[in-house]
Amino acid sequence: MTAQQQTTAVARVRAAYARIAETDRPEIWITLRPQDQAEAEARQVDARAAAGQPLPLAGTVFAVKGNIDVAGLPTTAGCPSYAYEPKADAPAVARLRAAGAVVLGSTNLDQFATGLVGTRSPYGAVRSVYDRDRVSGGSSSGSAVAVALGVADFALGTDTAGSGRIPAAFNGIVGIKPTRGLIPTTGVVPACASVDCVTVFAPTVPQAERVFGIMAAGSRHPDPADGRVQAGARARRPGPWRVAVPTTGQLGEMDPGWAEAFEAAVDRLTRAGADLRTIDLTPFSQAAELLYEGAFVAERYTAVGAFIEEHAGSADLDPTVARIITAARDIPAHRLFADQDRLAALRAHAMAQLADADALLLPTAPGHPALAEVAADPIGANTRLGRFTNSTNLLGMCAIAVPAGHVGGLPFGVMLIAPAFTDDRAASIARLLTPTVQLAVAGAHLSGQPLNYQLRALGARLTATTATAPAYRLYALDTAPRKPGLVRVPEDGAPIEVEVWELPVEGLGALVASLPAPMAIGGIDLADGSRLPGFLCEPVAVNAAVDITSYRGWRAYLQDGRGGAQPMTD
Amino acid sequence: MTAQQQTTAVARVRAAYARIAETDRPEIWITLRPQDQAEAEARQVDARAAAGQPLPLAGTVFAVKGNIDVAGLPTTAGCPSYAYEPKADAPAVARLRAAGAVVLGSTNLDQFATGLVGTRSPYGAVRSVYDRDRVSGGSSSGSAVAVALGVADFALGTDTAGSGRIPAAFNGIVGIKPTRGLIPTTGVVPACASVDCVTVFAPTVPQAERVFGIMAAGSRHPDPADGRVQAGARARRPGPWRVAVPTTGQLGEMDPGWAEAFEAAVDRLTRAGADLRTIDLTPFSQAAELLYEGAFVAERYTAVGAFIEEHAGSADLDPTVARIITAARDIPAHRLFADQDRLAALRAHAMAQLADADALLLPTAPGHPALAEVAADPIGANTRLGRFTNSTNLLGMCAIAVPAGHVGGLPFGVMLIAPAFTDDRAASIARLLTPTVQLAVAGAHLSGQPLNYQLRALGARLTATTATAPAYRLYALDTAPRKPGLVRVPEDGAPIEVEVWELPVEGLGALVASLPAPMAIGGIDLADGSRLPGFLCEPVAVNAAVDITSYRGWRAYLQDGRGGAQPMTD
Repeated sequence: MTAQQQTTAVARVRAAYARIAETDRPEIWITLRPQDQAEAEARQVDARAAAGQPLPLAGTVFAVKGNIDVAGLPTTAGCPSYAYEPKADAPAVARLRAAGAVVLGSTNLDQFATGLVGTRSPYGAVRSVYDRDRVSGGSSSGSAVAVALGVADFALGTDTAGSGRIPAAFNGIVGIKPTRGLIPTTGVVPACASVDCVTVFAPTVPQAERVFGIMAAGSRHPDPADGRVQAGARARRPGPWRVAVPTTGQLGEMDPGWAEAFEAAVDRLTRAGADLRTIDLTPFSQAAELLYEGAFVAERYTAVGAFIEEHAGSADLDPTVARIITAARDIPAHRLFADQDRLAALRAHAMAQLADADALLLPTAPGHPALAEVAADPIGANTRLGRFTNSTNLLGMCAIAVPAGHVGGLPFGVMLIAPAFTDDRAASIARLLTPTVQLAVAGAHLSGQPLNYQLRALGARLTATTATAPAYRLYALDTAPRKPGLVRVPEDGAPIEVEVWELPVEGLGALVASLPAPMAIGGIDLADGSRLPGFLCEPVAVNAAVDITSYRGWRAYLQDGRGGAQPMTD
Repeated sequence: MTAQQQTTAVARVRAAYARIAETDRPEIWITLRPQDQAEAEARQVDARAAAGQPLPLAGTVFAVKGNIDVAGLPTTAGCPSYAYEPKADAPAVARLRAAGAVVLGSTNLDQFATGLVGTRSPYGAVRSVYDRDRVSGGSSSGSAVAVALGVADFALGTDTAGSGRIPAAFNGIVGIKPTRGLIPTTGVVPACASVDCVTVFAPTVPQAERVFGIMAAGSRHPDPADGRVQAGARARRPGPWRVAVPTTGQLGEMDPGWAEAFEAAVDRLTRAGADLRTIDLTPFSQAAELLYEGAFVAERYTAVGAFIEEHAGSADLDPTVARIITAARDIPAHRLFADQDRLAALRAHAMAQLADADALLLPTAPGHPALAEVAADPIGANTRLGRFTNSTNLLGMCAIAVPAGHVGGLPFGVMLIAPAFTDDRAASIARLLTPTVQLAVAGAHLSGQPLNYQLRALGARLTATTATAPAYRLYALDTAPRKPGLVRVPEDGAPIEVEVWELPVEGLGALVASLPAPMAIGGIDLADGSRLPGFLCEPVAVNAAVDITSYRGWRAYLQDGRGGAQPMTD
């Protein structure tokens, strides 16, 4: 009954396949490995771990975007007739497998990684994990959804124009697009080879950073197969994190509520201690336009143009993707020279705007389209999506996309875009965006009461004094210090005074981890109809306790005990 | 009843003075400001905030070590007759006040910052916040205890040989000793002027980093009054955080259980993804010995030797401090030259040992002495304390001390010591040491059950399958997905199967923040007598639910429903 039991790789694989069956989203996979094959690999991992090998990722499973080589699985890039059997894992995949992670399969994507929507695939449109009528975002669609569903612990994507970030935003997870050169793109089907990056999806920043670190660790010396590695990070002037945001109005049109959600993220960073400054977004926006409207798209023709021309009209080709890449054939080289000059000037302008800022904060996308909207205007809807992401890779920067709340029940995400080789700083700033949570307190944690200092030590601040819904009773418990017990009742309930405190999510975790009996934390219904976590108490404790509901609050009861104030009638 | 209410600076000051009265530790203060004076300053802060000034520290209060100038308070350095009225705040203090923080007072310290114990003061010995028979650690004793008690949101200390770290470890809080030069030491009574640093105490790493950032922000250009500023950080090779630890046995004798607690911290870093490597601690240990046993102590005579000689025999002087500093008078300069050469060689050796490691992990102290031990052997007990901290400043490194669990009910702490100007990296690694917490689950979060993926997505791992104490009843609730409700009962309880999952503290916070009704998290008593947070349920939900206690667990109940297994008799 009390046997110790570790999460083994085999158990983890079995849980993943159970979750795959339960979630019924077959469109996220191009090739799902047979479970017995994944289990066999997991058994090897367990054996290596048992033999004492250091395997930091033992017991984890991951999904790989279908344009990245995994030995034993076809690389399709989202096009069945393009498929080939890779001789070896891409180095990015090999490093993760060497660390003990087990591949579940290769995931669906916008064909040839050309798209930000997740619908441009003969393997089917991938839908948002939160709303089946909306797109998942892409091109790394299946990888993002596999993580968001809790099927995979993490997943690999790629990012040329935002493909590793847009689907993170739409599915409420984290996406790291590293500085180019930190993870080799060897074994990746090129989209725009000179700016493509391998990316990581994971539920939280620490989990994504961990995987990124392990993949980047092989890059002690720049990968010899990757000739375009950048070098050099810049030193940092001391002080709080400095975060640039665009001047008002420069974000342009966004979905309803998204501008407010972005403002809330800015406020959260400020409250967490970051030093915000506004900059002119113009050079970033103009560089973004260059990616699709300029000559750079010709690099996609370099990559797969000949294949597409050979297979013109095939049902294997996504018609939108084929149209975009075919059209790139006729872009003259003199335009590319001109665009390269223009980009160099924009980059200088962008860096001058950033000045000593550690990162630029932007919404990850301007809105979250429905499948129907994308079907009606495949190119226009896609182009709108990339407004904030398109410039990052062209400017040689790194980025991290993180969840930043919800709008209308769907995830809203923001990005921190930072100079090359400052990936760790961008992640540190992103952690400041970890959502704060609210906690309702009714007793010893109220302002002026003996345990209030615990909330402050956890970084909490008072946001409201209000009352519960009229559905509770309050008891004076026999504890030290004295505390009340709040209990929800089916009838004869009353409104009880509570304070609402906002605190970091880890602060709430710390408070819960040290809860003394008989206290508990559960959902409390407030007078305004909202519901927050708050202090409740186990029913066993109130059996012998005095009912003090008529005071409508702990402070009124204490005041009466000290000063003789009369209780309100119930 | 529902009026919005912000934490104002005035309210914060009042709560601080209430907490000061409640905690009854007068020895932490040398000069506590009159409450009305602090409130008057807080009113100005509130007025500045209302006028729209950006005041990132508005609504916070802090304590300042008695050797740092605060305008309006005497600077004593722990010696009444040394006291002077500073003309202005030290720049470190001025930057915090400019950001809206309100000073509560100046705190007790080992006289002239000479000591690591907290007992060498005519203002009284400062005791550990957790055990009044043990020392607080020093020399920044009062500042550390003010934070640990929840009186101050943060506090300033200084660190020459460990004074900003040892008391952090003994009182369960965070201490940042920045790279020298990032915070000016202008307005600080020198101990060893060439290596002294201003330090920050706070309850958590993010809170300490925030204060540090604000203090360092003024250092855009090195403080002109500080002539010894270092320059230059080194670039980082990509990969996971690389942490050096000493080879087995090099830590030497420690308090019972401390070696095991250190191993547990090493394990936690490994599990969090850090890449550990063992190094030879010898150059660090030998540099540490140089600090007290070599010629460097003469710098303390340079600072206050003349004063001490003039006041020889005064009751104002701590006899141990006076003895140490007076003895330093006769150290010949040729020994200092020799020690400087020796230190340069040790520094080169130490950096070669570190190689590409991001930081060195060490216990902050080797043990936590009782007041009586220090009284019996004032110099020997103190020297032992500094074994791990003494070399940091001499080697020109930065450090952060963080809590890392408990031994025998008292806090245990570790340090990350890192190359100059990599303070932010050291803090990032320190965050990996944030304690994990355990959670007992009995229903839909069990392995193989529908909500188990939520735990995994939060980074949890299964550590045990066990049962509750025989004090619970289990109910089948009417929820989707189906869940049981676990309720503690005064009698007729049974043991119920639970799994124990370990997860990051922020993961527990996230889980609690999104708890659906009627679930609650409270303490659960396990079969082995331990108590962990776990899923309970509100009593209101079980009134109409089916009692399934006889199955002794949710999985047995489900299995019966599917396959006809017989319930165990109750």
